[in-house]
Amino acid sequence: MSPARQVGGSPAGPNLRRLAAGGGRYLADECAAGELHLVVVRSREPHARISVDTRRARAAPGVHAVLVGADVRGATEPMGMMWNAPIQASAPTWCLAGDRVRYVGEPIAAVIADDAYLAEDAAELVDVTYDPLPAVVEASEQSTPLLYDDWPDNVFGRTRFEAGDAAAALAGAAVVVRGRYTNSRVAGLSLETRGVRAAWDIAGQTVTVWTSTQSPHQVREALATSLRIPRSRVQVRCPDIGGAFGNKACAYIEEILVAFAARVVRRPVRWIEGRSEAFLATVHGRGTVVDLELGFTADGVISGLRATVLLDCGATPYMVGLGTGVVTAATVLGPYRIGDALSELVAVVTNKTPIGAYRGFGMPEATFAIERAMDEGARLLGMDPVTIRHRNLLRPEELPYWTAAMMCLDSGRYSELLDLVAERIDWQHTRREAEQARAAGRLVGVGVACYLEATNFGPSLTAAMMGISSAGHDRAVVRVDASGLVTVLTGQMPMGQGLDTVLAQVAADEIGVPLEAVEVICGDTAACPYTGYGSGGSRGAGVSGSAVMMAAREVREQMLVIAAHLLNAADSAVLRDADGAFTDTSGRRVTVAEVAEAAYRATDLPDGVQPGLEAAYTYDPRGFAFSYGSVAAVVEIDPDTGTVTVQRLVFGHDCGVQLNPAKVAGQILGGAAQGLGAALYEQLPYSADGYPVVQSLWDYFPPLPANMPPVELVHLETPSPFSLNGAKGTGESGAIPIPAVLANAIRDALGEHAGTVADTLPITAERLLEAIETTRRSAPVRIETR
Amino acid sequence: MSPARQVGGSPAGPNLRRLAAGGGRYLADECAAGELHLVVVRSREPHARISVDTRRARAAPGVHAVLVGADVRGATEPMGMMWNAPIQASAPTWCLAGDRVRYVGEPIAAVIADDAYLAEDAAELVDVTYDPLPAVVEASEQSTPLLYDDWPDNVFGRTRFEAGDAAAALAGAAVVVRGRYTNSRVAGLSLETRGVRAAWDIAGQTVTVWTSTQSPHQVREALATSLRIPRSRVQVRCPDIGGAFGNKACAYIEEILVAFAARVVRRPVRWIEGRSEAFLATVHGRGTVVDLELGFTADGVISGLRATVLLDCGATPYMVGLGTGVVTAATVLGPYRIGDALSELVAVVTNKTPIGAYRGFGMPEATFAIERAMDEGARLLGMDPVTIRHRNLLRPEELPYWTAAMMCLDSGRYSELLDLVAERIDWQHTRREAEQARAAGRLVGVGVACYLEATNFGPSLTAAMMGISSAGHDRAVVRVDASGLVTVLTGQMPMGQGLDTVLAQVAADEIGVPLEAVEVICGDTAACPYTGYGSGGSRGAGVSGSAVMMAAREVREQMLVIAAHLLNAADSAVLRDADGAFTDTSGRRVTVAEVAEAAYRATDLPDGVQPGLEAAYTYDPRGFAFSYGSVAAVVEIDPDTGTVTVQRLVFGHDCGVQLNPAKVAGQILGGAAQGLGAALYEQLPYSADGYPVVQSLWDYFPPLPANMPPVELVHLETPSPFSLNGAKGTGESGAIPIPAVLANAIRDALGEHAGTVADTLPITAERLLEAIETTRRSAPVRIETR
Repeated sequence: MSPARQVGGSPAGPNLRRLAAGGGRYLADECAAGELHLVVVRSREPHARISVDTRRARAAPGVHAVLVGADVRGATEPMGMMWNAPIQASAPTWCLAGDRVRYVGEPIAAVIADDAYLAEDAAELVDVTYDPLPAVVEASEQSTPLLYDDWPDNVFGRTRFEAGDAAAALAGAAVVVRGRYTNSRVAGLSLETRGVRAAWDIAGQTVTVWTSTQSPHQVREALATSLRIPRSRVQVRCPDIGGAFGNKACAYIEEILVAFAARVVRRPVRWIEGRSEAFLATVHGRGTVVDLELGFTADGVISGLRATVLLDCGATPYMVGLGTGVVTAATVLGPYRIGDALSELVAVVTNKTPIGAYRGFGMPEATFAIERAMDEGARLLGMDPVTIRHRNLLRPEELPYWTAAMMCLDSGRYSELLDLVAERIDWQHTRREAEQARAAGRLVGVGVACYLEATNFGPSLTAAMMGISSAGHDRAVVRVDASGLVTVLTGQMPMGQGLDTVLAQVAADEIGVPLEAVEVICGDTAACPYTGYGSGGSRGAGVSGSAVMMAAREVREQMLVIAAHLLNAADSAVLRDADGAFTDTSGRRVTVAEVAEAAYRATDLPDGVQPGLEAAYTYDPRGFAFSYGSVAAVVEIDPDTGTVTVQRLVFGHDCGVQLNPAKVAGQILGGAAQGLGAALYEQLPYSADGYPVVQSLWDYFPPLPANMPPVELVHLETPSPFSLNGAKGTGESGAIPIPAVLANAIRDALGEHAGTVADTLPITAERLLEAIETTRRSAPVRIETR
Repeated sequence: MSPARQVGGSPAGPNLRRLAAGGGRYLADECAAGELHLVVVRSREPHARISVDTRRARAAPGVHAVLVGADVRGATEPMGMMWNAPIQASAPTWCLAGDRVRYVGEPIAAVIADDAYLAEDAAELVDVTYDPLPAVVEASEQSTPLLYDDWPDNVFGRTRFEAGDAAAALAGAAVVVRGRYTNSRVAGLSLETRGVRAAWDIAGQTVTVWTSTQSPHQVREALATSLRIPRSRVQVRCPDIGGAFGNKACAYIEEILVAFAARVVRRPVRWIEGRSEAFLATVHGRGTVVDLELGFTADGVISGLRATVLLDCGATPYMVGLGTGVVTAATVLGPYRIGDALSELVAVVTNKTPIGAYRGFGMPEATFAIERAMDEGARLLGMDPVTIRHRNLLRPEELPYWTAAMMCLDSGRYSELLDLVAERIDWQHTRREAEQARAAGRLVGVGVACYLEATNFGPSLTAAMMGISSAGHDRAVVRVDASGLVTVLTGQMPMGQGLDTVLAQVAADEIGVPLEAVEVICGDTAACPYTGYGSGGSRGAGVSGSAVMMAAREVREQMLVIAAHLLNAADSAVLRDADGAFTDTSGRRVTVAEVAEAAYRATDLPDGVQPGLEAAYTYDPRGFAFSYGSVAAVVEIDPDTGTVTVQRLVFGHDCGVQLNPAKVAGQILGGAAQGLGAALYEQLPYSADGYPVVQSLWDYFPPLPANMPPVELVHLETPSPFSLNGAKGTGESGAIPIPAVLANAIRDALGEHAGTVADTLPITAERLLEAIETTRRSAPVRIETR
């Protein structure tokens, strides 16, 4: 209908141009008159009893207040948990530590001063006396000492999924792969660090908090709870967000701290996270070990699976709790037909920075495990890695399919896409070439991996069953103003990925106006409708997009009724022409602007029609929508340096209806870069006594542009039956299969004697050199024999 | 239903406490980082051709830009007119004058500098060369020179209302009163002056404008039009408003100027109106002369009316155009039965500050004329002033009644309320006492006056018929959050009168929660729903109150459906108990909070029910709702000083259903104080050559607390059939009849020889002394004989 259809096209949208032109307005760019600066004094010890003397700091120039743990206890509630497993321990976390710290970086005190320099200087004068305790570094059910005295052990929580009889199935299998697959901790590393500003009204009754978050409404709820004020007295506003990647998906203690501090000093207060500070203060991702047993029949059919996921939650798991581990345990079955399965999660605390959401949210970890194991199964059975996957991938006619871990896979053409990828990379030929190269002494390998991405977070019922405190619905308000321009109000929060453009496309199509006529308003809990959860769980396109579509459709219906009235025609006789105007059968027409003018002028409306043009719709999806895909890669390892070069990377993906293919591609490519980092470079190790090795970008190695191979995209579009617009999310797809496929290719390159080097991430040059050295020792003449 | 009913009670509301405690956040209290200060260079001449040299100013320290008229022509559109009479001249007004100025105070240039001091200093360096023209000071159809060269005369517009044959009726009358009733210009004088702040995004595509206005959406439209950007790219935000009184009801040129300047300098810009500046830059009120002929039969029945309203619009009538004059012409018939009437308006331009909206909007002027004339009629016929009014007041059974000036009077018990007032002041007795006092040489008088207030601005159809560019509908969004707290979003803008509390009361009652559970969000065109017109025309309680009621009622219905589902009962079997909880017939109950939790948790909702609790309603009233009343006063004039002491003031009013009687009383008392000022003290005279005499509070005399008599309130409640909640507005009632009643009382005190002193406002001590002197000369022994 109407003007050039937007959905399915790839407009960049006005914000891309604006942001690219340096027009972003980020949190640190704004400062109210009289705003004070807050600096957080953080623990330098992983585990200690502490006492704090703030006298020198309080006497420092320009200091308005120095807050310590005792100030916030009694005055605030501890942070809520977003994820509550059936069995999950309680670890009340306030925004400042009490008499005990549990990780390096834990907030101990906050200094509020006239400017950031004075605050930093005064922070140096906060005297913290540490009485160290032994640190728990290794994640383990048996670790000591206890981090929380009233817990029986350091286990934070457990969950399990079980169907059929995994033990019997494994016992009867022809071959069983047993592996331990380790994902190191990594950093989300958004270009913009976090930051919070807060201002109270003088009476201390209402607070406005500006913060760089993906989830304004959830932050509002956390603030209301912690500060003990009604939610309606909290307004959360978000300026432009310079990247988030899940790291900004939940309320942080600094949001509480800054708001609390502003109430204490009765002035606006700001805190801008430093880049180095972020390595300690912002959640880490991954940190998961998966022990997997995967049994096969002789012809490569999976007969059973048993997995134990061990999640290192860090010290104060208030963010997503054991959520990432639950998702790892639930998705470790992959897109395969597995009837007998037992997947268990054990989440434990350690003296480290808390683990939280990061692009992929447990799914890269799961994919890494199952896909490595699939390859090992193929190797044991002498099968082709593609063939063994085909044998187990669910067929389209089997979907929707409830997995043994209670995930309902909605739709997909898994094998078809795997074939497309194999075809694109010319699988057999490429494999032969690699073999020849290896025969020539080069370390060339080819890998493949399949993946699922659980997207469209919701429905609320599923969320509740999973123990998540957020609901999964989303509301959109669509308004056409008196001049025919469209405003979309959403609780979603774009963070650079262009979600606002995508929602504008949806509204433009439904209303019948060009994209330029649509403005998307977000990032304000007063202005924007409530959403059950923010922009996370890859739910923008499918869930929010469906809500916008339905609200816009209702507005279009309102317009049609008015247009029919103006044309003196029956509703059913009114059509839209190529310009979006309403026409009757005789060809008379009224434009969108004329209908809008009439709707607001309100002097000649049909009976019972209210003035104005506006509608709202709340959408709760029927289920998760599973994006999926297959990737294949060719790598070569430099035997002298251990450097891995990714020579080819074919990325096949299907996220249902693509609302904006360029933005989908952007998501895939960006995610793949982060996947590459996790596969080869990025890690946040701790010393044996609990000190974080990485405390700045000097010691952290994200992939550089030169490391990133060209990505060859292949896609299918299988609409989801579980979203109204057929869209599935794709924000995390890129990150999910890359570690698996690169590990498989590296494993292939290293040959039979590679040991388990490819089972632990990142597969650094250093570790590869070690493995190569081992190979050389065992086979001095040829690096690889087959 | 449910908790202690709020509507009809008089809670103060949280904002009253907050504002009284100094917690207001007014426009000048906020300043963004890097915000520049704008100072307006204003004309010092009433009428002149000008040339401007900005070189010295531009070179001054800290100056970023100096804008002149040429900068805004071409780059912006002239201001729109809010009121377009059928015949109204065009006077395009830009935010800076071109080569001609037409009043002292007209903006000529804008200096934008680092701080206000530097801007003020540089403004002194803007060299304006004036080539003076003769000034038009007296409002007249024949005045010269022409202010606008392309007009045939200085007439801005005309309108007329006619029914029957006024000329014949007057010719056949037993007596005809002929009077000229003059209202001087006055100032609204809100405690907070105006102010504007503006900030663009770096790409210059969207602008946020903070302004102290009653009409955020209308300012948004003016900005969009003048700046030539889509409305959806303009966000108008209003902090607390420290009084407005109609003076802040329309878009001002400074709003355009500051937004334009911010675009030019690519920095946030602020302008805070100075108190003295306000006397020149903010619209003046009144400025109207009514020539009235009122014919009576021998027994005091009005036989015909002919009125000519002459409105002095000032130089650039872009604000409400000739709107106040239209209202004067339309309401000069009062609440009386007048079949033969001709009421004409002539609006002319003069070299003065523009006239605009001010509490009463033409109605005090009309009331002053008709009520003075009624008294003169009684005097000529030897009738009691109360009696002659009773004879002509419309009876309840005659309502709704279309007046000869096409106003539909909705409901009222005019005579009953007049009786109540007469009874309260003990009319006959008090009249006798005054007579005795006068006999003893004292200047004591008693007066009475009746009035109408046209309220609940709308419906849109009427507004359009009257030539008003705004529509008259209002939208409310009511949301219950997951904790059971209520948010009301409204396009209305409270300015200190407590409208937010009143709307909260309405929502609290409908939802069934205590008042403290309701938050009202206003002052943000992005957050708040569109309203056809802002908070003016006394439309908050009736129009917006009705919209809130209906939206809240719909939310309550949503809650009831969910409650019934939770109780496993039929909808019809669910009741509310005293705490607002939903109960079934067996006494089981779910609380509002439980229903809200279920609505958002969304795990167990009835089929087809969307998650969340929210509804919107747009209300377009069926017609104006006319508040009305009668007032009576006793005054004494000190013959030596001319000082008028108001000894008693009985104020009888009926604004339909009183949503919050204390706030109604506050409106009446506050309005009465401003009426007292207009009656006795306040004026903005111009010298014969066009210079404003008053340019600061040194020369302007609002009433002081000591001048204000205790006001004895009497009221009736006759619901309006034209609002859903029966409420009529009352924001202007206080101001409307006070000049009339005091003039009548003063006239009574001065006796037969008072001449026309009481026919011109303000009736200052100086003018009274003159009149007394005249009386003394003509009757040297006794000041008053009868």
